Amino acid sequence: MSESSLEQGQSNERARVAGDVLTKPNASSSPTATRIGILGGGQLGQMLGLAAIPLGIECVFFDPARESPARLVGRHVCAAWDDLEALAQFADSVDAITFEFENVSAKSLAFLAARKPVRPGVRSLELTCDRIREKEFLRANGVPVQPFAAVSSRSELDLALATVGTHGVLKTRSLGYDGKGQRVIRHADELASAWDALDNAPCIYEAFVPFDREVSVVATRALDGSIAVYPVVENVHAQGILVRSIAPARLSDVLARAAEEHARRVIEALDHVGTLALELFVADGTLIANEIAPRVHNSGHWTMSGTRTSQFEHHMRAVAGLPLGECSSREPAAMVNLIGGVPETAEILRISGANVHLYHKAPRAGRKVGHITLVAPTMDELLNRCAMAQALAQRSNRLS
Amino acid sequence: MSESSLEQGQSNERARVAGDVLTKPNASSSPTATRIGILGGGQLGQMLGLAAIPLGIECVFFDPARESPARLVGRHVCAAWDDLEALAQFADSVDAITFEFENVSAKSLAFLAARKPVRPGVRSLELTCDRIREKEFLRANGVPVQPFAAVSSRSELDLALATVGTHGVLKTRSLGYDGKGQRVIRHADELASAWDALDNAPCIYEAFVPFDREVSVVATRALDGSIAVYPVVENVHAQGILVRSIAPARLSDVLARAAEEHARRVIEALDHVGTLALELFVADGTLIANEIAPRVHNSGHWTMSGTRTSQFEHHMRAVAGLPLGECSSREPAAMVNLIGGVPETAEILRISGANVHLYHKAPRAGRKVGHITLVAPTMDELLNRCAMAQALAQRSNRLS
Repeated sequence: MSESSLEQGQSNERARVAGDVLTKPNASSSPTATRIGILGGGQLGQMLGLAAIPLGIECVFFDPARESPARLVGRHVCAAWDDLEALAQFADSVDAITFEFENVSAKSLAFLAARKPVRPGVRSLELTCDRIREKEFLRANGVPVQPFAAVSSRSELDLALATVGTHGVLKTRSLGYDGKGQRVIRHADELASAWDALDNAPCIYEAFVPFDREVSVVATRALDGSIAVYPVVENVHAQGILVRSIAPARLSDVLARAAEEHARRVIEALDHVGTLALELFVADGTLIANEIAPRVHNSGHWTMSGTRTSQFEHHMRAVAGLPLGECSSREPAAMVNLIGGVPETAEILRISGANVHLYHKAPRAGRKVGHITLVAPTMDELLNRCAMAQALAQRSNRLS
Repeated sequence: MSESSLEQGQSNERARVAGDVLTKPNASSSPTATRIGILGGGQLGQMLGLAAIPLGIECVFFDPARESPARLVGRHVCAAWDDLEALAQFADSVDAITFEFENVSAKSLAFLAARKPVRPGVRSLELTCDRIREKEFLRANGVPVQPFAAVSSRSELDLALATVGTHGVLKTRSLGYDGKGQRVIRHADELASAWDALDNAPCIYEAFVPFDREVSVVATRALDGSIAVYPVVENVHAQGILVRSIAPARLSDVLARAAEEHARRVIEALDHVGTLALELFVADGTLIANEIAPRVHNSGHWTMSGTRTSQFEHHMRAVAGLPLGECSSREPAAMVNLIGGVPETAEILRISGANVHLYHKAPRAGRKVGHITLVAPTMDELLNRCAMAQALAQRSNRLS
């Protein structure tokens, strides 16, 4: 099927219908990719695969883990990230490559990019895997960030304290996620020992932001440069792990528009193709960018029930070279994570407006094993339903 | 994962939250089925599998065809319908069994039903695979049908004409679909030769209904007896194949409520567990039932975009013993079939409110290879978008 649909994609003429309800014509002349390789086979891969199949796309997942959740929705190449022979065969079997896991080595990525289009570009990954370059990029593009300083030697500790202050967070420059690889600093004399505790790895020291709210914006950019920005969502974390998202965020219109504009600027400046998330703090009535996730993101899972086109479908459309769809939310929506355990499915589904998404992963403390999406006609009712979903989740959640 | 989630399903307590937004408690004490066997691996199986995965359910498909579309979303047992050894292994590997293809032999079904719960029950299949018993069942349950008569011998031809009239349709009692195995009769002297053309198979002769509109109602019944009825849809066929559905049907409220009530009565009387479709004619301001499809149905594909819980998710929930969800439509919705060929995906997605569902089947004349779902804020706008989708589909459709 993939071959024949590729042929059709190339040979068919454009629709000769009235243009008023058609969106802008596709600026790209590339044919639609119908086999897409995905680096990483976790739950994000599984949800990308579920979105891909109805689009006529078959996915091939590259993941060293044998029990990858994505194996249920596509072929699974089980090999090490640096196995060049497996990577070459993987690249040969697909039309384009994307990722759901960003800690792929630069060498492996370059190897793949020489063989097939990698979308989003290598630049999105290179920039966001280094917290200092990421912050510099945000600042250079007019997106406010808190004071920060590099710490790569003991001699930089004092300068970092002078730049940032004594209340801050020391994080490894790369490879951190879900709150791992970071230490909160409250006194000047804690910084040196915190850096020792992080094995003197290259670090960034950032000013602590006394935020009122954490928000994020998920956006997708197509191959032709068109952009879809989802409504801003507000997020609650516990022990560094996302627990709940609510869309739209309870934010002034001015701040909401500003956050969306920041996401738009970031995705354009990166020349990104696909979905990304920009995380921000709301502090004292202003926005401060925290980080960019160059991929589909947990804070965008609500889009599966809350919008016409989910972040996963949008990502696959972008990578395949297809046009984007609608991403407005028509009623308040939310997402509640299931972490370390799963309540009885029937109990979840008995909550009005709830849908469940389980990842087929063995439960383990701190591991995301599923999520609940919720919609409601009003924000009050949504918060009501959220409270029920969270009460259920908390009975089986094991964060650590 | 399936084992562990089954254990959790049994051991977890009920939610201790306020009951006002919870739907009725589950009357069944059965644990949730997390491995479900599906007889048939066509596009209906593929869409059932896509709906099953987020519910934490893994599907196993039984289908003699090697290139079954459902292979993308579950394990595929490729064996003949009467291969008892393969059927036994299939049954052993799952918690419950359902079907997306109704022409499974009574013997194979009984063999499976002795091993694992078959949902919907065998009764739904037995009744609907025989057009005469089906019509008798409808009539006995207060659902109006047109005059009909059995034709199983030459001597019955005259009685059939006297009962039904000279304008009718002669159909084989079983095994017909998409307009195959039937002949339209316009004169008394055509009946005998039509019966010969159908190889003198046992037939039903039905009065021709000069209908204004064809409509259908899709409904799902859970293991605990609760029922979800989708809004009535109106359907357009060409050469016996469904071309387009529109929801809600442009029908008076009285007729719409009556059609939904008929579906409710049918699904209850069958003691059906899962989704079914009741097809009806609207003729001279009245409803006349045409047939029951004891499974998810093409005229219910619009529910994938038009409702919170699709007919596929509802079917899997019912078979798994899970509670049902919301099935109201919040805006006008439609479905346009792609038959025998697929237009360029990008062209489809450029229509506002459109989503595409491709089945990964090789194109062939008369074969359903995908469908487009559409939503719009008003019925006028929906018809507008439908016209665009149909214009696109017609460029690549090959019905015969």
